Amino acid sequence: MSTSSGAHGGSVTMRDVAKAAGVSVATVSHVVNDKAGARIGEDTRLRVQEAVAALGYRPNALAKTLSQGTSRFIGLVTDQVATTPFAGQIIHGAQDEAWKHGYVLLVANTDGNEAVEGDAIAMMLEHQVHGILYSTWYHREIAVPEALHQTDTVLVDCFASESGLPSVVPDEVQGGRTATQELLAAGHRRIAFINTTTPSPAQSGRLAGYRSALEEAGIAFDEALVVPASPEQEGGYDATAAILASGATAVFCHNDRVAMGLYDGLRDQGLRIPDDIAVIGFDNQEVIAAHLRPPLSTVALPHYELGATGVRVLLGMESAPTSGPLLIACPSIRRESV
Amino acid sequence: MSTSSGAHGGSVTMRDVAKAAGVSVATVSHVVNDKAGARIGEDTRLRVQEAVAALGYRPNALAKTLSQGTSRFIGLVTDQVATTPFAGQIIHGAQDEAWKHGYVLLVANTDGNEAVEGDAIAMMLEHQVHGILYSTWYHREIAVPEALHQTDTVLVDCFASESGLPSVVPDEVQGGRTATQELLAAGHRRIAFINTTTPSPAQSGRLAGYRSALEEAGIAFDEALVVPASPEQEGGYDATAAILASGATAVFCHNDRVAMGLYDGLRDQGLRIPDDIAVIGFDNQEVIAAHLRPPLSTVALPHYELGATGVRVLLGMESAPTSGPLLIACPSIRRESV
Repeated sequence: MSTSSGAHGGSVTMRDVAKAAGVSVATVSHVVNDKAGARIGEDTRLRVQEAVAALGYRPNALAKTLSQGTSRFIGLVTDQVATTPFAGQIIHGAQDEAWKHGYVLLVANTDGNEAVEGDAIAMMLEHQVHGILYSTWYHREIAVPEALHQTDTVLVDCFASESGLPSVVPDEVQGGRTATQELLAAGHRRIAFINTTTPSPAQSGRLAGYRSALEEAGIAFDEALVVPASPEQEGGYDATAAILASGATAVFCHNDRVAMGLYDGLRDQGLRIPDDIAVIGFDNQEVIAAHLRPPLSTVALPHYELGATGVRVLLGMESAPTSGPLLIACPSIRRESV
Repeated sequence: MSTSSGAHGGSVTMRDVAKAAGVSVATVSHVVNDKAGARIGEDTRLRVQEAVAALGYRPNALAKTLSQGTSRFIGLVTDQVATTPFAGQIIHGAQDEAWKHGYVLLVANTDGNEAVEGDAIAMMLEHQVHGILYSTWYHREIAVPEALHQTDTVLVDCFASESGLPSVVPDEVQGGRTATQELLAAGHRRIAFINTTTPSPAQSGRLAGYRSALEEAGIAFDEALVVPASPEQEGGYDATAAILASGATAVFCHNDRVAMGLYDGLRDQGLRIPDDIAVIGFDNQEVIAAHLRPPLSTVALPHYELGATGVRVLLGMESAPTSGPLLIACPSIRRESV
């Protein structure tokens, strides 16, 4: 290593501060660690704080944790930080909210590997985390790792019905309803829905939202308008023929990747979006949604809010219902495809 | 919170272990913390370890850090975890490598905000990190935050020429050469390069690699074949006319997003990839590269390796040259567009 300026955390000690302030080391410790019950005069406290600032003394966070018996860590266990930007946004929201309240996030990525997950949770317990956010990169039901019961836990973007653990998830039904309402508001009556073939809360929830928006608009549900597809570009492309055969004038796609594939399929047929057929996606996926031709109107998955809300629930600032997950709204993002 | 099984980190104490093993608490502490210099008989050590296992005692990692004077934390400061999967892959590689050597990663996302960055580094110093990896989501030169000089630091995906700090970055020149060589190997002689308009090591390095591959192949460099574009889908689409005018039979795109836009532009002209024109990208960007039609051949940015190598350099297991950054190879990813 070429850096060697040395002493980690600075070389100013508590003794230096005590000397500068003309007080005992114990007094400095009490002021710095903000010990409850220690009787310290206001002027003494001020003198110590001035010496701390003047000397650039950096209190040792670990010693502080030990003296107070709880840490300022919140653990975040995530299964897929590497392959989608989704986990990144959960981390982002959780970190911003944690910092706001003086907590630091310990992040562990598990790749869905149980052994790594066990190690990650053990590591967090050893560091006396205040609690753990356990998150998945797509909304699903999980089996709760046993070790999570040793600390306070909030599930983020996942849930475990029987566990009694609080959970924060996207409102898939409202999201599906919102997407469909955007197409209805543009005058469409015959609206197809390309849904994923993978059973999940997103599959059932978005379908329920689609149906409820149609019902509200007095439009009968037509099974023929629901086209199953793998939830990727390839699935959207392959659904093109079924969409054209259905006579739909607008399509709600299960996600933005499906919409990207459908764009290619429609273009191959010489159709223009939105003039010939309107398209709305779901997810508001970075790198894709804003950069398709035309830019894709969609409904956003609120990953940042999931992370931030998870922290607030963990810290007791917001509560999750005991009957089921706390639902976070999926907002409409209007661009040029509707 | 609905979890209340209670005591963080388990309720077994060092005293319980001492009682079960028939030794003093000090002896347990020495064994558990693996104190150098403490003379403990092998059978005593064994008895303590058995009691630890039998009771499920969880040593307090914070106390251990204090007793040993150094922590098992490595800090990772990153500027953009949320908006690209790139930072996620750096985190992934750094975490895997850190864990392999018994270290835990403290991750802080700064959004490029200097105040947040200052707080993040201060937090890490307070937690007595072993050192810090400072990373950016795209390869560039940085000004080193002053506080980083208080601990060992390795720059990841960035560098600071005058700082003397070790740095690990992708080998842009080799990557550009590799991309061009793939097109040459497919028989192309007139190869265009859509380069970014943003000055960066990627801009100059990939161009240098492109030129050196042409030179090796005995092909004269033709300025007219280098087309400037904004490094996104929109830039690739807008470059289509210039590419067609250049008479190129193959195109090396600055990144996969540019290639995605070029795909749309070529398709609008009724051209097929790779039959009418071959395309290679750069980055191997998740969500895009493998899912274009046809799947995009590209050169991968080695984000996982950047993170892992950064940790090895920080731990002194690998060294960066003093004369400049340690270069990590960008491998070719063959799909169907060449």
